Amino acid sequence: MNPARNGNRVTCETRLRVRYAETDQMGVVHHGNHFIWFEVGRVELLRQMGFSYRDMEQVDGCHIAVVDACCRYKAPAHYDDEIVVRTYLKRVRSSVLHFGYEIFKADDHALLALGSTTHVVIDKDMKVIPLPDKYIRVFEAAVVRDEF
Amino acid sequence: MNPARNGNRVTCETRLRVRYAETDQMGVVHHGNHFIWFEVGRVELLRQMGFSYRDMEQVDGCHIAVVDACCRYKAPAHYDDEIVVRTYLKRVRSSVLHFGYEIFKADDHALLALGSTTHVVIDKDMKVIPLPDKYIRVFEAAVVRDEF
Amino acid sequence: MNPARNGNRVTCETRLRVRYAETDQMGVVHHGNHFIWFEVGRVELLRQMGFSYRDMEQVDGCHIAVVDACCRYKAPAHYDDEIVVRTYLKRVRSSVLHFGYEIFKADDHALLALGSTTHVVIDKDMKVIPLPDKYIRVFEAAVVRDEF
Amino acid sequence: MNPARNGNRVTCETRLRVRYAETDQMGVVHHGNHFIWFEVGRVELLRQMGFSYRDMEQVDGCHIAVVDACCRYKAPAHYDDEIVVRTYLKRVRSSVLHFGYEIFKADDHALLALGSTTHVVIDKDMKVIPLPDKYIRVFEAAVVRDEF
Repeated sequence: MNPARNGNRVTCETRLRVRYAETDQMGVVHHGNHFIWFEVGRVELLRQMGFSYRDMEQVDGCHIAVVDACCRYKAPAHYDDEIVVRTYLKRVRSSVLHFGYEIFKADDHALLALGSTTHVVIDKDMKVIPLPDKYIRVFEAAVVRDEF
Repeated sequence: MNPARNGNRVTCETRLRVRYAETDQMGVVHHGNHFIWFEVGRVELLRQMGFSYRDMEQVDGCHIAVVDACCRYKAPAHYDDEIVVRTYLKRVRSSVLHFGYEIFKADDHALLALGSTTHVVIDKDMKVIPLPDKYIRVFEAAVVRDEF
Repeated sequence: MNPARNGNRVTCETRLRVRYAETDQMGVVHHGNHFIWFEVGRVELLRQMGFSYRDMEQVDGCHIAVVDACCRYKAPAHYDDEIVVRTYLKRVRSSVLHFGYEIFKADDHALLALGSTTHVVIDKDMKVIPLPDKYIRVFEAAVVRDEF
Repeated sequence: MNPARNGNRVTCETRLRVRYAETDQMGVVHHGNHFIWFEVGRVELLRQMGFSYRDMEQVDGCHIAVVDACCRYKAPAHYDDEIVVRTYLKRVRSSVLHFGYEIFKADDHALLALGSTTHVVIDKDMKVIPLPDKYIRVFEAAVVRDEF
């Protein structure tokens, strides 16, 4: 892993092992699973920034709904592979969050997929709300470092 | 299909087409999906008896939580197969429901799997409650026919 | 549904009912499932054009691997909703296929999601191969109508 | 963890964190996921005994097909819970393997589910074959300790 690739971004690297149930009859991971792995990475990035997404939902009533999700597949992931999901915040506005993702193999660092998701912050009734200050400050700091 | 196999049971036959995402690298359907198909069959049996499980949850606050689920796999299901999930009520008590399932191929009626699930009726706070009368009456009638 | 939206495109409309297992604790369909529904739509579009994807793989050794997948979520899908996946071919080249998708509710035609996927045709050893003529001719005819 | 609960069994404890995608609209983990967690536990038990299931399939041509799977649900698992899957071998015959499972919460050791699966060993053409000696010896040793 070339650390320079990350610049000053606050990134989170989460390690997963590919499950048998995640493969399909082509003998590789079904492409739908990458979006679930992105979600796992997102939760861990939040945790690394000091937040629990469980509490965001339960205590603060903030749900981060996906409005856009994209993945470019570079190479297939295989059963039992150890993979790394690198997650970072690309942009933050009051009610909108953009995350970026890189999935690569843990052993040889081969890039498997690149992704991005956009989210709006909503309450339990699905109404868009601004992200509480305590989050926005930390989130923005995490992104700003990306600008340099 | 030998109709005699059903006796007087109120059964529901739901047709599904196997999705690519449901296969695994052995080239057959991953065994976890059968439990999701059972659930699809259960919902359709309820609908056939005049109930919507959506309304059971939202209007009547009744959730049918799984406490036990078993499946015996007789033959593999393959991608793009049309399959039938035959669902029936095995036993009904005030707060407990037992369902049975048979999964077979639509074209040659080859048996693919047999299953059973047990459920307790709970409210939103996960407390066991008796099934409202309007359900219990219809459910019991559906089972009784099985006794003869 | 405004039929003009389809122009002369060869589109395929596949109807699905949202499964309980497809929901998450936000009370709506988890966003990963849309990519599985796209796949269901893709297979049915192929079938409508006279091809079975099962045979494409087994008989002709052609696998249509996803290299890019995007979804924009317009409104949440809910448990037990009947939804329609409208699928069409956006572009066809020798080894590359672009599909487009619209997911909407069957009852009120509310748009739930828009998507697109890009695929390369590969053989069993994951090597890119040109699509056999019998496919390419039908596929191109399906797209051309989109151009006008 | 009370080690006495395990007796002399060779058990494997695998730790997982519940994914958001694994929840359903009842606000708990959908019951189908437990069978996927059992599979994760099974693979790790094999690894702990010195075997890679990937190699079993690819090098030795041995597939361990599920013929029976049961789960009893004791308490719901929730999003972001850290859970432990304890897996052990219950019985081994030439072509048949029986596994047992306990799923509990990592923090307070609350029991969430108990399970069992039966498998037959098959080759690529789905024909039942005896397990190669190198496996059977290790597997039987792992079970024998359970007898006392």
